[in-house]
Amino acid sequence: MIKIALDAMGGDNAPHDVVHGGIEAARISKGRFEVVLVGDQNLIEKEIARHFRIIDLPFSIVHAADAVAMDAQPSQALKQKESSIAVAFRLHKDNNVSAVVSAGNTGAVMATALMQLKRIQSIRRPAIGMLVPSETGKTLLLDVGANVDSRPGDLLQFGIMGSIFYSHVFNKEQPSVGLLSVGHESVKGNEVTLKAHEMFRNSNINFIGNIEGGDIVRGNVDIVVCDGFVGNVLLKFAESFHGFFKANMRIFIRKYLFSKIGALLMKPTFEGIRKAFDYQEYGGAPLLGVQGYCIIAHGRSTPRAIKNAILAAHKTVVENVAGHILKGVEQLAIS
Amino acid sequence: MIKIALDAMGGDNAPHDVVHGGIEAARISKGRFEVVLVGDQNLIEKEIARHFRIIDLPFSIVHAADAVAMDAQPSQALKQKESSIAVAFRLHKDNNVSAVVSAGNTGAVMATALMQLKRIQSIRRPAIGMLVPSETGKTLLLDVGANVDSRPGDLLQFGIMGSIFYSHVFNKEQPSVGLLSVGHESVKGNEVTLKAHEMFRNSNINFIGNIEGGDIVRGNVDIVVCDGFVGNVLLKFAESFHGFFKANMRIFIRKYLFSKIGALLMKPTFEGIRKAFDYQEYGGAPLLGVQGYCIIAHGRSTPRAIKNAILAAHKTVVENVAGHILKGVEQLAIS
Repeated sequence: MIKIALDAMGGDNAPHDVVHGGIEAARISKGRFEVVLVGDQNLIEKEIARHFRIIDLPFSIVHAADAVAMDAQPSQALKQKESSIAVAFRLHKDNNVSAVVSAGNTGAVMATALMQLKRIQSIRRPAIGMLVPSETGKTLLLDVGANVDSRPGDLLQFGIMGSIFYSHVFNKEQPSVGLLSVGHESVKGNEVTLKAHEMFRNSNINFIGNIEGGDIVRGNVDIVVCDGFVGNVLLKFAESFHGFFKANMRIFIRKYLFSKIGALLMKPTFEGIRKAFDYQEYGGAPLLGVQGYCIIAHGRSTPRAIKNAILAAHKTVVENVAGHILKGVEQLAIS
Repeated sequence: MIKIALDAMGGDNAPHDVVHGGIEAARISKGRFEVVLVGDQNLIEKEIARHFRIIDLPFSIVHAADAVAMDAQPSQALKQKESSIAVAFRLHKDNNVSAVVSAGNTGAVMATALMQLKRIQSIRRPAIGMLVPSETGKTLLLDVGANVDSRPGDLLQFGIMGSIFYSHVFNKEQPSVGLLSVGHESVKGNEVTLKAHEMFRNSNINFIGNIEGGDIVRGNVDIVVCDGFVGNVLLKFAESFHGFFKANMRIFIRKYLFSKIGALLMKPTFEGIRKAFDYQEYGGAPLLGVQGYCIIAHGRSTPRAIKNAILAAHKTVVENVAGHILKGVEQLAIS
């Protein structure tokens, strides 16, 4: 059975929500995978004790004495050899688990993953992919923060990795890849994207050309490639919209009586929209380009988000995404 | 009286909506400014004929035989010496008008403005500023597309120009300036922002440090500085949200009967939120750093948007923003 390590100590509501999510995942495993809860054994056991009907569920505990603070610097975190993150990745490196899921300190998770799992041969820079909702389904945006100052060749590799991930995890052959820029024309862009555009054109992936910021949620492209600086800024900007909308909504609802009643009647609609926007449905962000599997869940992950992240980790393992990246990256780079 | 040239042929709904907006602005001029409609005299006169009570309104027409297509390349547009854009900026250069407002081809407007008005001494790169709504008011984001591959010193100049514009146009002393990056800590960023951060720190403006994508609409900063590549991607991304939200809303409202009634009752709320998001209220984007005044209105500008852009142009002229930039840029660069 595939084993998936879950960093029980990572996340704003850890270990409570994380352990809860791990157990929920175990409930629907149906013999496909075992959840390995990594963290303070005492705390984890206390959390487990809150749940019922857990006998025979496929989960286990591996003790880790330490935990990385959510705001710790990655360089500091790497020194915490007994942190739940460090222990989880050692389990992965030693082939005791096949994937790691963590809602902990993103920088620390990434640094540890790189150190323990190493890059896939010929991948210069691993990237974090993020699934964002679109009008027609979902778009994979990468890189969303693993790198700044990416080179043109890095962007091409992000596109190839994204394409491989998307095709295997969503069973779509030749998903479309767009390069994020300031205009659809091939002559629009900055120094790096202009060079990357040429490389994409000469590659074997389904490159549809430059796309603009507005195309990300429009649903006319499966994979959007950008430098991690741009991706990170975009992601945080998008996350803030929900709060902005809610704040505005509140102001206006207070103003108009009918709106108050209207808001009540519209609850299922708002709930539906919230869900469509919601990262929780998408099971976290894969770190692509390492020799193994790592899903980075949102720091504010709820139990459902953790459960979905574990399912996503399972899917990437089953589909052998890293294996396909190793084989595909050279093959797809040049036509 | 201050004269403001309005490119009557620029914009998706030109000349109809543009002339309409120009007349609306003239109606509320109260002797402060005259609107100079630049474009095909015949067409403009036909549009004017649709309006009533226009005798004695402060507007005039200057004929321009040609018009720049919305999708023309800037280099091509520069060759159209009799386009409404070219004529408008010649009027400005020759001091026959004090500002130009155009909803036309942004690239062409910018290129013509640069060629005719020239850069302000010691400004290396003019920038386009964009006012975006925030939870507490409005934020000036710049650059949103005049430049890609900005240098650290360019970002500092954007911050200084933004600070001067904001303080004069919104009467706020020492508005706060944030540098868009991937983390609040000063060590977070890419090569360019890390260097720019140092320069900002040593400047005399009210620099509050790095800000993240989520801070733009949060309202805790007045001016957000970024490279034009990032700003452009962000802007187009934000503009697409409205459509995304509406598409989702429609799906869910169709699903739930009560939501349909709720939506009707909530109409004033939605209208209010739409307005808060609406570029039309903000009167276009100033091109900062040229020896003169240019407001770039949205291609889809309605009459109200055009009217507000003219009012914004008037305000920048009255406040002598370009003069303050000329004096301030050296003074504020180093503490």
